[in-house]
Amino acid sequence: MIVTPQTMRFDQPLTLQSGAVLPSYELVYETYGQLNADRSNAVLICHALNASHHVAGLKADANGQAIPRSEGWWDNMIGPGKAVDTDRFFVIGVNNLGSCFGSTGPTHLNPATSQPWGADFPVVTVEDWVDAQARLIDALGIRQLAAVMGGSLGGMQTLSWTLQYPDRVRHAVVIASAPNLNAENIAFNEVARRAIITDPDFNDGHYLRAGTIPRRGLRIARMIGHITYLSDDVMNEKFGRALKPLVDAARTDEAQAIERLAYQYSTQAIEFQIESYLRYQGDKFSEYFDANTYLLITRALDYFDPARRYGGSLSQALARASAKFLLVSFTTDWRFSPARSRELVKALLENRLDVSYAEIDAPHGHDAFLLDDPRYLAAVRTYFERTIATDLKGEAA
Amino acid sequence: MIVTPQTMRFDQPLTLQSGAVLPSYELVYETYGQLNADRSNAVLICHALNASHHVAGLKADANGQAIPRSEGWWDNMIGPGKAVDTDRFFVIGVNNLGSCFGSTGPTHLNPATSQPWGADFPVVTVEDWVDAQARLIDALGIRQLAAVMGGSLGGMQTLSWTLQYPDRVRHAVVIASAPNLNAENIAFNEVARRAIITDPDFNDGHYLRAGTIPRRGLRIARMIGHITYLSDDVMNEKFGRALKPLVDAARTDEAQAIERLAYQYSTQAIEFQIESYLRYQGDKFSEYFDANTYLLITRALDYFDPARRYGGSLSQALARASAKFLLVSFTTDWRFSPARSRELVKALLENRLDVSYAEIDAPHGHDAFLLDDPRYLAAVRTYFERTIATDLKGEAA
Repeated sequence: MIVTPQTMRFDQPLTLQSGAVLPSYELVYETYGQLNADRSNAVLICHALNASHHVAGLKADANGQAIPRSEGWWDNMIGPGKAVDTDRFFVIGVNNLGSCFGSTGPTHLNPATSQPWGADFPVVTVEDWVDAQARLIDALGIRQLAAVMGGSLGGMQTLSWTLQYPDRVRHAVVIASAPNLNAENIAFNEVARRAIITDPDFNDGHYLRAGTIPRRGLRIARMIGHITYLSDDVMNEKFGRALKPLVDAARTDEAQAIERLAYQYSTQAIEFQIESYLRYQGDKFSEYFDANTYLLITRALDYFDPARRYGGSLSQALARASAKFLLVSFTTDWRFSPARSRELVKALLENRLDVSYAEIDAPHGHDAFLLDDPRYLAAVRTYFERTIATDLKGEAA
Repeated sequence: MIVTPQTMRFDQPLTLQSGAVLPSYELVYETYGQLNADRSNAVLICHALNASHHVAGLKADANGQAIPRSEGWWDNMIGPGKAVDTDRFFVIGVNNLGSCFGSTGPTHLNPATSQPWGADFPVVTVEDWVDAQARLIDALGIRQLAAVMGGSLGGMQTLSWTLQYPDRVRHAVVIASAPNLNAENIAFNEVARRAIITDPDFNDGHYLRAGTIPRRGLRIARMIGHITYLSDDVMNEKFGRALKPLVDAARTDEAQAIERLAYQYSTQAIEFQIESYLRYQGDKFSEYFDANTYLLITRALDYFDPARRYGGSLSQALARASAKFLLVSFTTDWRFSPARSRELVKALLENRLDVSYAEIDAPHGHDAFLLDDPRYLAAVRTYFERTIATDLKGEAA
């Protein structure tokens, strides 16, 4: 499956939750599969912190040929014959407002100043993203989505769809998510933001004008993030206390890793493999991710809290929903623990909604929602085949 | 109890685990209570990351008067009539090498250059600290300690005492500790260190010469630390998703906190109380703690691993110990979880050593070892009264 992103421009102003107005914006998106005749088989995929519209398939190069190893971030889940089967469903991946992967965001020009928006880009919320996505769905001629689906922050968007546009979502697939962030989640986001904002190269968020990039802060933010994505167990299994191997420079044929047993006794050298892994992840991230986008997206996470307008009652907040739900959580996910998904299940059941819930005993922590756990993929496949597909008009169940 | 720190100078070179030699050094210490005639009632307290020799009592001002609110960090545990009763025991608090509270460390002058040591201060380990402490105990004329006691990193020093000087420790009280750091622990330390080292004001660790202080990095390090000291539950209870209150500037009598319900929609302003708490903790820490000390102490934590020389067998590593042990852990401590204490208990029992173990059901996370949980304080008191005190010669049990 080779895909090319498309861009949709919206010239009608979008009023955000904050009251700010975005005069116009563009959304970048990809689609996989074919929209059926009655436009009833569309599935919208919402992305999490550092992902994009490139959900599945391989990217095309200038000649339309597949770029190797350019698979979308949920390619193990979505594609022909996969759990979300693009032979049957028309799947849409969309990049969110404020992101740095093509949709209008802080690296784009502010039409009022002809300078990059930078820190002046308005704060966007989960609700704002859903409003913007709904216009894309309008423009694609789709009245009702067969499903909205997402993991983590994408699960929050999915939940918000069922509250903002209840009659436009038949099914909501909410994976490794939560009804809001808890204090510890907010705390980790805040430390990451402070690392970015206090980096001298941040220049009050106008680093593009200044010709700098707050790479130090981005590295720290990503290292913190990575620790919270993995479970304690999987970190111990993958890295434990193993020392970073030496590389034998004398071997000219191929770098040869030599197991190292002695400490270097240094506070700055890389001693342990886990340190090497984290620094690598931080370096890589700081090369491609926009710092203002990081601030915006973590803030959207912090702000999401549908129960807030209902005195904290999640049950009341979900009274507007009419979709059917599949929720999935992972036992070792300490960022969005199963207990948070169970809160959602309880509040949905209190509203007498149809809810399926799978709690997967997986070792990988929050990252599990992106990985190939067979029970997890089977649970999603089964839900799509036996529940969502049976709703499709003009198709045998 | 008003206390004044004392300083002991050691001119005999100390060879460190790294092979480096410290030509001379000073240790700052405090003592509480009286050493008995046969010098059998001494208890050594080992400190954790950001603590010091000031364990109990109030500091004295220049006139020998008590400074209000200057209680030692374990004043709830140690003092006349307290769990560790200074009417009965002679308690010693000592500041570790490499620290920034008086004992020789990176802020002191390197005799070879007459400049502050800075990043050139040698890497010190838990074993090095214990060796240095043993010389202090020698100088105080104490052959055998009634007990060594510590929490967290202090517990590691306590454990190491029983292996390095088995015949000099009758009892070891190891609280909220672990036989080594796991990958996640090392990961958090590494992120904190990177935040400090990549702060432009770090100046390769020679910031004192440069006239700068890497405050940004210290703030981030401390914020990360604080998240790991608290349990998820206690964070939710103390802060939850509550917004930071406004202060009514019109009230001239006293600052009046006004509950705030509306978001400010900002990535940089303080929205949530947890953010305010963390920033305050970070700011405070950055005013008094030395950055090189932070690197050294976290590295000492990383390096500690007595089982390492025994192919990972903790049981073999502990074969040298002959002390009796009290271990305490706290159910919500995810930094040094009860499972890590149980590993120690198991390995000690495999060596047929006397072990008492209390797993306290406390909500406060790792911080619990410094707090006033009555069951915890009672467990320590009982052990000191019924077990340690009965060993004292010339005193009725």
